[in-house]
Amino acid sequence: MLKKYLPILTWLPHYTRRLFGADLLAGVIVTIMVIPQSLAYAILAGLPAVVGLYASILPLLAYTLLGTSRTLAVGPVAIIALMTGAALSGVAPPGSPAYLEAALTLSLLSGAMLTVMGILRLGFFANFLSHPVIGGFLSASGLLIAISQLSHLLGIDVTGYTALSLLTGLATHLDALHWPTLALGTGCLAFLIVMRRYGRNALTAIGMPKGLAALCARAGPVFAVIITTLLSWWLELGTRGVDVVGDVPGGLPPLTFPAIDLPLWRELLVPALLISVVGFVESISMAQMLAAKRRERISPNQELLGLGGANIAAALSAGMPVTGGLSRTVINFESGARTPMAGAFAALGIGLVTLALTPLLHHLPVATLAATIIVAVLTLVDVPLIRQTWHYSRSDFSAMALTMLLTLTEGVEAGIISGVALSIALFLYRTSRPHSALVGRIPGTEHFRSVTRHSAETLSHLALLRVDESLYFANARYLEDTVYTLVASRPELEHVVLICSAVNLIDASALESLDAINARLKDSRVTLHLAEVKGPVMDRLKKSHFLDDLSGRVFLSTYAAWSELKRREE
Amino acid sequence: MLKKYLPILTWLPHYTRRLFGADLLAGVIVTIMVIPQSLAYAILAGLPAVVGLYASILPLLAYTLLGTSRTLAVGPVAIIALMTGAALSGVAPPGSPAYLEAALTLSLLSGAMLTVMGILRLGFFANFLSHPVIGGFLSASGLLIAISQLSHLLGIDVTGYTALSLLTGLATHLDALHWPTLALGTGCLAFLIVMRRYGRNALTAIGMPKGLAALCARAGPVFAVIITTLLSWWLELGTRGVDVVGDVPGGLPPLTFPAIDLPLWRELLVPALLISVVGFVESISMAQMLAAKRRERISPNQELLGLGGANIAAALSAGMPVTGGLSRTVINFESGARTPMAGAFAALGIGLVTLALTPLLHHLPVATLAATIIVAVLTLVDVPLIRQTWHYSRSDFSAMALTMLLTLTEGVEAGIISGVALSIALFLYRTSRPHSALVGRIPGTEHFRSVTRHSAETLSHLALLRVDESLYFANARYLEDTVYTLVASRPELEHVVLICSAVNLIDASALESLDAINARLKDSRVTLHLAEVKGPVMDRLKKSHFLDDLSGRVFLSTYAAWSELKRREE
Repeated sequence: MLKKYLPILTWLPHYTRRLFGADLLAGVIVTIMVIPQSLAYAILAGLPAVVGLYASILPLLAYTLLGTSRTLAVGPVAIIALMTGAALSGVAPPGSPAYLEAALTLSLLSGAMLTVMGILRLGFFANFLSHPVIGGFLSASGLLIAISQLSHLLGIDVTGYTALSLLTGLATHLDALHWPTLALGTGCLAFLIVMRRYGRNALTAIGMPKGLAALCARAGPVFAVIITTLLSWWLELGTRGVDVVGDVPGGLPPLTFPAIDLPLWRELLVPALLISVVGFVESISMAQMLAAKRRERISPNQELLGLGGANIAAALSAGMPVTGGLSRTVINFESGARTPMAGAFAALGIGLVTLALTPLLHHLPVATLAATIIVAVLTLVDVPLIRQTWHYSRSDFSAMALTMLLTLTEGVEAGIISGVALSIALFLYRTSRPHSALVGRIPGTEHFRSVTRHSAETLSHLALLRVDESLYFANARYLEDTVYTLVASRPELEHVVLICSAVNLIDASALESLDAINARLKDSRVTLHLAEVKGPVMDRLKKSHFLDDLSGRVFLSTYAAWSELKRREE
Repeated sequence: MLKKYLPILTWLPHYTRRLFGADLLAGVIVTIMVIPQSLAYAILAGLPAVVGLYASILPLLAYTLLGTSRTLAVGPVAIIALMTGAALSGVAPPGSPAYLEAALTLSLLSGAMLTVMGILRLGFFANFLSHPVIGGFLSASGLLIAISQLSHLLGIDVTGYTALSLLTGLATHLDALHWPTLALGTGCLAFLIVMRRYGRNALTAIGMPKGLAALCARAGPVFAVIITTLLSWWLELGTRGVDVVGDVPGGLPPLTFPAIDLPLWRELLVPALLISVVGFVESISMAQMLAAKRRERISPNQELLGLGGANIAAALSAGMPVTGGLSRTVINFESGARTPMAGAFAALGIGLVTLALTPLLHHLPVATLAATIIVAVLTLVDVPLIRQTWHYSRSDFSAMALTMLLTLTEGVEAGIISGVALSIALFLYRTSRPHSALVGRIPGTEHFRSVTRHSAETLSHLALLRVDESLYFANARYLEDTVYTLVASRPELEHVVLICSAVNLIDASALESLDAINARLKDSRVTLHLAEVKGPVMDRLKKSHFLDDLSGRVFLSTYAAWSELKRREE
């Protein structure tokens, strides 16, 4: 029981020295690699850079205790930082103490929601974020984040959370363009792109071992941070109008607890829910992918508890909302992490950095962090997925397109809510016009197939109608129309058999419609029969009057109905 | 073409003298019978009594031109009046000119929405009001209306649109109880109940012809109005504290046009939509029931245009939102109406009354109208339906119960919106855990049935999994879990066949899951096959990469898969 809720108890007793070595190395590498992105995502959310470090300490320890994925690394991630900034900018001015306080509240709410969803085993909720919607959302968010970072790259002071407001802000303040910042930023950007694209092969070519070359290529942001910080310190760029990170308070994260402020909670409820669900979906898909690679299993509901614990830990230690991050997880995995202990080591490492090394960050230019973010998020823009979805299904594509459009123009919340609503509406619309087919007998067999797709034997006084969908309120009336049209068009008809092999449910509205069909066919002297009714559906029908009133019979198979009814009545 | 949009052109050319006679008689009877309810429902909506008459003139003529039901009678109805009052009380104080103006706006918006829905053929929207939700809504509204009329019966001045606010209002002002009003009101109520329950038999017993007896029993409200008006005039009840209708302006309805007030439109948008949909559902179910009795056909989309026209006509003639009313339609039908011309005659009749006879209404006590409403709406409370739904399905019942609870406590809009949302959520939840069954061969046949319900032949290296639901975003991951659990529990497994006979749709998310299943089974050296894929689903799959990557094959039938795969590979 305890093992179920504390997965650490399943692996810690078998912890070996070999695992320790692997995890320690991974922890050290992750510590170094995630510092730039932690700072960057805090700034993206409109928070002081150090908050990103704070959010990479206690939350990691919480996930180590509660998480089921062996290699997932939690911390601030780009999408969640964007959503955090969008949510907070609605309730407090960036930079104010109220803004910081609201970030803690958002973490706490999100953590509490994830925990409650985990306890109630509501992980399936995430399924309602369909693949096209989440894909479209990630692509649009990537673009939106990149656009939001342009201002840091250009040295223009613009904030906003829609593509339109950001771009018009940039356009109107273009005269404020700061050339040294632009030069530094684009230089960084070029360096990072080259490192990412060619770094590995180039380093291998000059004789570096493959693994180390890959690691160094990934360490592009770390080199960029070191080089530009030194440059900025040497040229005193901070005093020449280049934005730098500035004084970062040293020491471990303070213990915090968000005040209980009900009006604020109410305002942050929807954003917290969206952050929870999006963060969970991102995290779980990555965790499942990695688990599959090493034949491990993760439990979605326990993952909710793990992420919930991590966010509550963030709220208690001056952090910001966190989830499993793509790049940090990949680094962790490829650095050879074997257990969640690697996360604990990384937490210790980042703790040490926060304790002692923050003065080194003073001269780090913000433009460097912006370049880091831009290179990271552009990988989120998934053009092949958009193209595939367009080819596969226009309906799925329309949900994707709406999500992208609204995310860019109206912001992240509008985008994701509309996308989910549209995909549900489209599904309901599709099921509201159920496919049904008149079937006939394949001569000489007991098989029945659609008369429009096969040459099947039919009888003029007998209609065999196969219904290819569960019958419920949205399509009940459509079935009525189908049957009435059928009866009206075939005056010789004596029997209608509804073949229910694909009907998994008949709800109260559909029962009402079946009642109406039965009564109306009786008036027209046509007998209604059912065939191939599934066990659970039949059990349900027996609780109603329908079977007593049914003018015809319930046949076990279509063939039985055919054999019995094929002779015309006199 | 013109005939399609103006159904009057289909029946007017064949109009005969015999039809004229029948329609004229029905029109006269309807004129007399609907006057009390027209006045009553206007007061229920918080409007002057005469608005109810206005709304029974031009709208009837519009429906005569546009409607497809031969016998439906439109006008103010109880539910719509209640919803109108609830909507208007949110935007203006009752009795103010702004309130009247808002009523016209609401009619116009509702008429425009119905017309647009008719043109776009969106009648299926109404299907989302499931039977339990509409049933629960009508029952709760009936109760709510009856409670709202208690204040008129007790002579206490209380308004409100939730059961709680009304009852607490009554309780706190109980000292203001006006005994003469109470005596008059309960007297009326007793008279109406007795007439409704025993009138017909009693009158037949004393020798009246059956038809006339039924008509007289239905005319209870008319007698009550005449008797209490005379009593009120004779005893000068109006000057003794009994509320009377008071001065009703004579003359035909004035031509009106609601001002274009965008903020008001925005506020009334949701109420107008709900009024349109609820009115349409009520009206169409009645029209279909009556059409079936006389073997006539009605067209749902043209009915939307008919009701849309009627509401626009109401907006142009100082009226209020209207729809097909139960009691006035039944009176029309039973009085022998044959064509919509009966409605035109009733419109003329009510026009004459409005022109000349309104002074007679001065002394009519409001308590009489309240008693009329109470007796009419209590028939909406459908206890057998509630009981049936409880027995048939707890899930349907929960949607019904929520609708009833919220209609009573939070008001009509909250009730209906929550009911619809819950029924959609429950449906999605059900389809998100699709039923699937491992099937085996019924020995000696080509039939395959669930191994848990039948004794069927199975093979340890071959799993035949029948999926009983369309595969879409909400259940895609559930299918993955099902397959992985299956594979994990049967180490000897070599082939998994997904039988897709009940799969009508595979959306982009489900395709992604099938891809993942295929890849993961390949890693575990298990081959994935499909069987019985429907034509349209197969066409769709051919547009993706899935079939190229599939490790196994697509079989036409389960038997073909069985025959091919039954021998274990070496």
